[in-house]
Amino acid sequence: MHPDPSPATGPLSPLDLDHLAASLALAEQAIGLTDPNPRVGCIITSVQGDVLGSGHTQPAGQAHAEVMALRDVTARGHDARGAIAYVTLEPCAHHGRTPPCCDALIAAGIQRVVVALGDPNPLVGGHGLARLQAAGVQTHLLPTDHPLAVAARELNIGFLSRMERGRPFVRMKIAASLDGRTALHNGVSQWITGPQARADGHAWRRRAGAVLTGIGTAKEDNPRLDVREVPTARQPQRVLVDSRLTLFPEARLLDPPGSLWVYHAQPDSGALGQALMDRGAELTSLPDPNGKVDLTAMIQDLGRRGINELHLEAGNKLNGSLLRTGLVDELLIYLAPMLMGDGRGMVDLGQLTTLEQAPRYQLVDMRPVGNDLRLRLRPPAVPHPGR
Amino acid sequence: MHPDPSPATGPLSPLDLDHLAASLALAEQAIGLTDPNPRVGCIITSVQGDVLGSGHTQPAGQAHAEVMALRDVTARGHDARGAIAYVTLEPCAHHGRTPPCCDALIAAGIQRVVVALGDPNPLVGGHGLARLQAAGVQTHLLPTDHPLAVAARELNIGFLSRMERGRPFVRMKIAASLDGRTALHNGVSQWITGPQARADGHAWRRRAGAVLTGIGTAKEDNPRLDVREVPTARQPQRVLVDSRLTLFPEARLLDPPGSLWVYHAQPDSGALGQALMDRGAELTSLPDPNGKVDLTAMIQDLGRRGINELHLEAGNKLNGSLLRTGLVDELLIYLAPMLMGDGRGMVDLGQLTTLEQAPRYQLVDMRPVGNDLRLRLRPPAVPHPGR
Repeated sequence: MHPDPSPATGPLSPLDLDHLAASLALAEQAIGLTDPNPRVGCIITSVQGDVLGSGHTQPAGQAHAEVMALRDVTARGHDARGAIAYVTLEPCAHHGRTPPCCDALIAAGIQRVVVALGDPNPLVGGHGLARLQAAGVQTHLLPTDHPLAVAARELNIGFLSRMERGRPFVRMKIAASLDGRTALHNGVSQWITGPQARADGHAWRRRAGAVLTGIGTAKEDNPRLDVREVPTARQPQRVLVDSRLTLFPEARLLDPPGSLWVYHAQPDSGALGQALMDRGAELTSLPDPNGKVDLTAMIQDLGRRGINELHLEAGNKLNGSLLRTGLVDELLIYLAPMLMGDGRGMVDLGQLTTLEQAPRYQLVDMRPVGNDLRLRLRPPAVPHPGR
Repeated sequence: MHPDPSPATGPLSPLDLDHLAASLALAEQAIGLTDPNPRVGCIITSVQGDVLGSGHTQPAGQAHAEVMALRDVTARGHDARGAIAYVTLEPCAHHGRTPPCCDALIAAGIQRVVVALGDPNPLVGGHGLARLQAAGVQTHLLPTDHPLAVAARELNIGFLSRMERGRPFVRMKIAASLDGRTALHNGVSQWITGPQARADGHAWRRRAGAVLTGIGTAKEDNPRLDVREVPTARQPQRVLVDSRLTLFPEARLLDPPGSLWVYHAQPDSGALGQALMDRGAELTSLPDPNGKVDLTAMIQDLGRRGINELHLEAGNKLNGSLLRTGLVDELLIYLAPMLMGDGRGMVDLGQLTTLEQAPRYQLVDMRPVGNDLRLRLRPPAVPHPGR
């Protein structure tokens, strides 16, 4: 699907890679801003390597990174003719809510475009580079295993998942003790992990298009599930799995900012459904044959609704059901350096009888966060950024 | 207790530190060889820095590192007069099973001694350096927070614990899934962790003076608890906690090599006790008021018997009881990248009602071992090598 553009230039110079790395840092500033669009950064330099302008993607419907950078060139009194553009994702070649970025680069007289990652969007894939080449612009695409290409992919892993697989990248967040307990028997769980880990968890929420929990957690903890511990330009969509539709209308999940999407399995949402809708909730009935929410269909639906990264913060029962869909792409586990002994587990998988039944993962990343330990793991089939 | 010797030399040179680091690497070769004596390495160089000889401690009753190094100098046709000795632990000044190493260094004409760590042995502490100084030998002792001094301490952490606290350094080893399960409900636990983690676990067993388990594990798994996966010159002492004295005489714990120490709580060990003794076991009755083995007294007793590092590999019940003694100095946890859901936990702490009751630790070290993750943690009160 993705034609391999023959680069018109030799290997990238260290200066090229520096500019590409800087454009990636710009792209990271678009986290929490551009969903459902990807996070893209662009730097425009002279042939000598002086930066003439830069920018990153704006909220959906507004300017993309390339256009922002071209505007910056003009605002700084420079001229983009003959210049080089460094972009973290292949420039778009189609008319979406904004005109194609390729055309803007060509019209501005850019002579060379260096791209970290090809765009898997079937409307774009390869067309952007091809159109640039056809206009006489030199193009260069990093090999997909180059560290900067890997980082560009990770930054947009949710967008790419939706383009390539038609569904969100699904991340399951769990905070537990060393011995895997998420709460004491009496439900006490505040706080197992420390403030740095909680802030880090909110930074992952911010990345997400939606944060999902289950009715058990909603009733027990009455969480807000919004982003509070880190600054953000927008709040992720909140999503609740509530098969029997029993949420209480006073739940904080229904408070502003933003709204709540409720997936249930009832044929008729009834008076409670109306009460929830009056509080701004959107209800979707997606029953499976057992009268529960069809979680696979729900995840697909969230993809159709533009959710790139889906952030799960649920209890062990829903966690187990979500894992059984086979659609969980990453475990984000915070382990507090304490032992709790008995208590609630991370996931309910029923009673396994052999170790072959236990789902296995590959460690993607581990690091201390405050006094806690953060692990990220992915199933073997999900691409990961290497170790 | 430990007089601060005034170093007769200025700061150590990079060459000095290189020689000290090399003597530490030699000392590490004494792991699994010298218990209950410490692991010590010694390098003797000319004033110009040429290595004249080196050696490490031999099995108890045989030559210490300094004597081995002096012999090596002679064997290589060199002369130690006017030379420099680098030693990882303060040379002994007392007659034990061997004559004092200080005297050997003085007699050989060594003019300068550089030491990584002072000896906390009350029979030695500071006397070694003082005696060298009195004989006109220049001495230099690293600050206790120097990385090489910290490493020298870690290498002999069990010996130092026995000297300073009169008991072993107690390390609890646990292998579990990410969600803290050490076995499925049906007892299946082979293998949660991979071969590299198991070999690493055996390397920690090799360091230990004794490996301890409980009667539950002995009956269920019938383990050998010896060192198999890594080469070793000796096997650690095996120790069993068996309050009611119900071990079956065919247990593999009683097989050669080595013998088994059994701690029980019976007034009379009876016919079974005789059968176990016939198989080479040594029995000790140490009852607490509840008719169980007094674990605190047992750990003290193991210190008196010369155990430097005590390695625990027990089930969750005994693990919980051992933790409650407050004498566990380190958790050595292998986490396999898998989820098991329900199953057996790491430790039985009863049902806690507040998180303040949960024991907390500090992360000392984390690293991947094969596909698994290895964590080492210590209670806040136990010194640790920094991060």
